[in-house]
Amino acid sequence: MPWNKSMPAHPVVAVAGATGAVGREMLAVLDQRGFPADALRALASARSVGCVLPFRDGQLTVAEMRPDSFTDVDIALFAAGGSVSEQFWQDVVSAGAVMIDNSSAFRMAEGVPLVVPEVNPQALRYHSGVIANPNCSTIQMVVALAPLNALAHIRRVVVSTYQAASGAGAGAMSELFEQSRQFLDGETLTVEHFAHPIAFNCIPQIDVFLEDGSTKEEWKMVVETKKILGDSSIEVFANCVRVPVLRSHAEMVNVQFDEPLSIDQAIAAWEAAPGVIVMDDPLAKAYPMPGLLAGTDAVYIGRIRRDPTVPYGLNFWCVADQLRKGAALNAVQIAELLCEPPA
Amino acid sequence: MPWNKSMPAHPVVAVAGATGAVGREMLAVLDQRGFPADALRALASARSVGCVLPFRDGQLTVAEMRPDSFTDVDIALFAAGGSVSEQFWQDVVSAGAVMIDNSSAFRMAEGVPLVVPEVNPQALRYHSGVIANPNCSTIQMVVALAPLNALAHIRRVVVSTYQAASGAGAGAMSELFEQSRQFLDGETLTVEHFAHPIAFNCIPQIDVFLEDGSTKEEWKMVVETKKILGDSSIEVFANCVRVPVLRSHAEMVNVQFDEPLSIDQAIAAWEAAPGVIVMDDPLAKAYPMPGLLAGTDAVYIGRIRRDPTVPYGLNFWCVADQLRKGAALNAVQIAELLCEPPA
Repeated sequence: MPWNKSMPAHPVVAVAGATGAVGREMLAVLDQRGFPADALRALASARSVGCVLPFRDGQLTVAEMRPDSFTDVDIALFAAGGSVSEQFWQDVVSAGAVMIDNSSAFRMAEGVPLVVPEVNPQALRYHSGVIANPNCSTIQMVVALAPLNALAHIRRVVVSTYQAASGAGAGAMSELFEQSRQFLDGETLTVEHFAHPIAFNCIPQIDVFLEDGSTKEEWKMVVETKKILGDSSIEVFANCVRVPVLRSHAEMVNVQFDEPLSIDQAIAAWEAAPGVIVMDDPLAKAYPMPGLLAGTDAVYIGRIRRDPTVPYGLNFWCVADQLRKGAALNAVQIAELLCEPPA
Repeated sequence: MPWNKSMPAHPVVAVAGATGAVGREMLAVLDQRGFPADALRALASARSVGCVLPFRDGQLTVAEMRPDSFTDVDIALFAAGGSVSEQFWQDVVSAGAVMIDNSSAFRMAEGVPLVVPEVNPQALRYHSGVIANPNCSTIQMVVALAPLNALAHIRRVVVSTYQAASGAGAGAMSELFEQSRQFLDGETLTVEHFAHPIAFNCIPQIDVFLEDGSTKEEWKMVVETKKILGDSSIEVFANCVRVPVLRSHAEMVNVQFDEPLSIDQAIAAWEAAPGVIVMDDPLAKAYPMPGLLAGTDAVYIGRIRRDPTVPYGLNFWCVADQLRKGAALNAVQIAELLCEPPA
């Protein structure tokens, strides 16, 4: 059903999980994009109460997130994990606020829009107070796939990811740093946030394993892509691997279309697409690289090649900052769409 | 034509490029496997003359490689790069020695066997004095694919690699180390061996670019796989990416067969195959990882899953030490085969 509460021009915004890697990035993005918030509340668990976070020219003091924290809030950006979102969503909605949830708790729920603003902004027309921000790996892939799928229907995607530590949070980023130093100094590596050491290693597991041998991260890339593109006929097979990179994800994407699409058409579609930057000049050794694109907002695409082993095959490499387009930026873009006057 | 010189039981072995990462590993493998060499000569370019390398309980002094270095040599293991192999191969063969060449110089040449001992030992029956050691990424993939292809014909492979610094040599490994320290210390990264910084980064380029937008490394994986498996009908599409790992390569391999092959059949075939170790217990978080398998000899296979998006799809992850099975070990195994008495 349509949400029947109109959004004020200057909404009150809460950021839940404000002290985490994504929460901090949400504050940075709200500031950098000049989001017209009337007021901003930084919320977190009890142990972070009193933390001071920089915001604009001043600072925010973190308050404890409680059921009554959402009174007078218009938009609540949640980045505190699935269980926290499940615990508080009714409080948020009861208070008349819209929750934009970065967790996976509600992404596949009926009636919850799963939105990438460049791809399916129309999905925001109907919601019941909860809007889901997709998985980071999914977001950058659908931003890249959508302009192509509009020209030639995608039959099948095989993707292998090269995912950064940031996807596991700020503590995981610190762990990569610390383990790297331990490795260089010949010390034993301290493992806490990952299943195994990540420094100078690749871990072919992100999130838990499901019954079919896939990880939940791989499953998310499959089902979320179909939901966002609104097409369950698109086959997706995903392989998710953690690599020792700090905060940008890379993906090698092999696509088979049902009909012809030339490289030139693909590049033209990407160059016309919002949020995409083509960086593909092999002779100049120019292609996107995760270590060099941290802090940027676009989905970068390079290594664009025809795959001659199937009819209508195309292969490319894409990189995006996991904390920006993969999480905080996408959530803030959704908030911006909510603030637009109805057409 | 068949090589008409029989191999003595205790051959004289030369290692050309003995001071490099692969050359040093060749010496270590010859020692560890008790290769029955009558004598061993360590050869390198003029600037390494006089270097002392450990071997068995003693040491070897490096001599300059010259056209007359191969007198009385029976087997010359070359790991000094393609141009050096091209410069000296005629001297080697004229001296009556067999060259086992780790470079790409002769791999695709007519009449030069391209050998992975577990896969196509029969290719050694006919040669003209030069035998090629395949590309490191190719070796581990064909060791994994061959036992499956014997049961069900492979139609198409899409592979994305996660390749270690060692593939670019000892200097590249040091560069990853040094750049990592520079990164942690907030210093500017010194780039010499790679096109871009590799520490905390992924570089989607290995070797030079070809006209079709592929890299030469990607091309090698395609054409060498067909040659080793002796089947040009197998379609291969390869994506090669350098990751900040020291010496083991990982590959995510997506295979489509022409006929049914169950997961259980695949695992049984791998468990019966020489040189393969299945490490696949998701609930115990057990799968191969490049950072933890350095110095081992097998091709490790895990994350084995059916790919339901195509008929007869199978997907797996494989890891092998680039300097061992990907280079030095494979070359020494070829030398061992040459020393076997004819059947």
